[in-house]
Amino acid sequence: MSLLVTGSIGIDTVKTPYGVSENCLGGSSVYFSMAASFFSPVRFVGVIGSDCPFDLVKVFTGRDVDLTGLEIRKDSKTFRWVGSYSENMDDRATDYIELNVLAEEPPKVPEGFSDSKFVFLANTAPNLQLKLLNQIERPVFVAVDTMDFWIEGHPEELKKLIKKINCLIINEDEARLLAGEHNLIKAAEKILDIGTEVVIIKKGESGSILCSADERFILPAFPAAEVKDPTGAGDSFAGGLMGYLAQLGRVDFESLKQALAYGTVVASFTIADFSLAGLTSISKDDIDSRFKTLRRLTQF
Amino acid sequence: MSLLVTGSIGIDTVKTPYGVSENCLGGSSVYFSMAASFFSPVRFVGVIGSDCPFDLVKVFTGRDVDLTGLEIRKDSKTFRWVGSYSENMDDRATDYIELNVLAEEPPKVPEGFSDSKFVFLANTAPNLQLKLLNQIERPVFVAVDTMDFWIEGHPEELKKLIKKINCLIINEDEARLLAGEHNLIKAAEKILDIGTEVVIIKKGESGSILCSADERFILPAFPAAEVKDPTGAGDSFAGGLMGYLAQLGRVDFESLKQALAYGTVVASFTIADFSLAGLTSISKDDIDSRFKTLRRLTQF
Repeated sequence: MSLLVTGSIGIDTVKTPYGVSENCLGGSSVYFSMAASFFSPVRFVGVIGSDCPFDLVKVFTGRDVDLTGLEIRKDSKTFRWVGSYSENMDDRATDYIELNVLAEEPPKVPEGFSDSKFVFLANTAPNLQLKLLNQIERPVFVAVDTMDFWIEGHPEELKKLIKKINCLIINEDEARLLAGEHNLIKAAEKILDIGTEVVIIKKGESGSILCSADERFILPAFPAAEVKDPTGAGDSFAGGLMGYLAQLGRVDFESLKQALAYGTVVASFTIADFSLAGLTSISKDDIDSRFKTLRRLTQF
Repeated sequence: MSLLVTGSIGIDTVKTPYGVSENCLGGSSVYFSMAASFFSPVRFVGVIGSDCPFDLVKVFTGRDVDLTGLEIRKDSKTFRWVGSYSENMDDRATDYIELNVLAEEPPKVPEGFSDSKFVFLANTAPNLQLKLLNQIERPVFVAVDTMDFWIEGHPEELKKLIKKINCLIINEDEARLLAGEHNLIKAAEKILDIGTEVVIIKKGESGSILCSADERFILPAFPAAEVKDPTGAGDSFAGGLMGYLAQLGRVDFESLKQALAYGTVVASFTIADFSLAGLTSISKDDIDSRFKTLRRLTQF
């Protein structure tokens, strides 16, 4: 089934203990699309300025990513982010940020994309996410990311959005903040009470939790011996997860469990190298092989 | 097969956000034995002073725990520990400690216990652990716990011990300290290089990792909605694990995986209440039932 993503396209500069990657391609929709395209065609919606040095058509060559929804604004500048990771990659600091085009009106969802069935709304203002979602006619499964800034600053708009979606994908700190509850199981229950059918809580190197009203699933992260750049891990996770679901066309709990495992595996490739290199250097076979390894590592 | 434990018996005072448990029974060998006795008979080796208000015979009534190795020293005082947990149970502080009898000569392993096949040496000075181990004739599987104090202060003695054992069970901070390596997979490999056949790294609410030279296994913690007192979780984990292995009489990797799951389940009962109440209020059926739940929660 069709899969649409809306999110950022960024010019990133990332510093990790392994080195510096200057002015490289980043952004949530870019990582998501690269990850999801291993499983399913992707409909891409995003906006850049005329200063963007990257040709996204070239970036996605050989992958089924429809860039009809890519808008290039002549008088705008592309989103820029400079971040650095601590010695152990446990903490990330934003050293510099220029919202630029992201602070303007969001891009329009092209008419031909309005029948999309699977939708991922990457992190941005909840009212913009809602605006984007309203342009989709009859989605089957809508997943949403958010962050502390919106949870703290715009909780009512966020809750309004959460009532309209199927799945919230957030990290553990965000889940605790949103629920006002430290225990993650209780936090998940409180988030389900807001209105989403499913909540997925990402715990970084400790894996992830998937909760619905009736069922739960817990999965460790893939044990990575080498982590060079964690940037994009969350969006790659969402991309692998949503790509697999769109390919399958089902969202029952068993399918969601598999999807979580695929998201976990895809993210493990992302963090092994800078920018998109971890994803562009692998094949679907590599993903399937690591999926089997993850199963072997976790089943008893 | 026979299972022997050597470790502490303590008078604990524990403060958690859920309340205070004053002068309650604690200690590694007590938690371990209570946990292991669900699976296998236990041979108990430990020492208390004449001030100890607890009758261990009564404590273990109805459980197959052989107290021949319990020594009561008339002129000594029992080990005391006062600890408190932070709001989120993430941190534990030792507020007060009296080693008392633990600073004296360790208890002797009774002659009738010297043919023990499964052995757990709870945390104490590595040279004492070695002394205790040397009293066992032909053990099949020896597991050992340690802590930062010995890793930092007595690394050579600890390494000498590690070369003689089958399994080291430590938490993630200890593993990083011992290996001088932050990444836990790499840390596990370095610890295996010291000489143990298997290393188990406990990550608290993030579960545990089991590594041998050829194989790995990763298991999340049981998702506990209620944590009242984490004291004894690690020793209960080791007790469930070793109790299951002793019952089975096998230590192949598949058996170790199952044992890790049983240890995880038993520890999840321990932390649900103060002192030993979480363990004394359950039956083997409760453990088996939660084991099945853990499997359902983690298998895909």
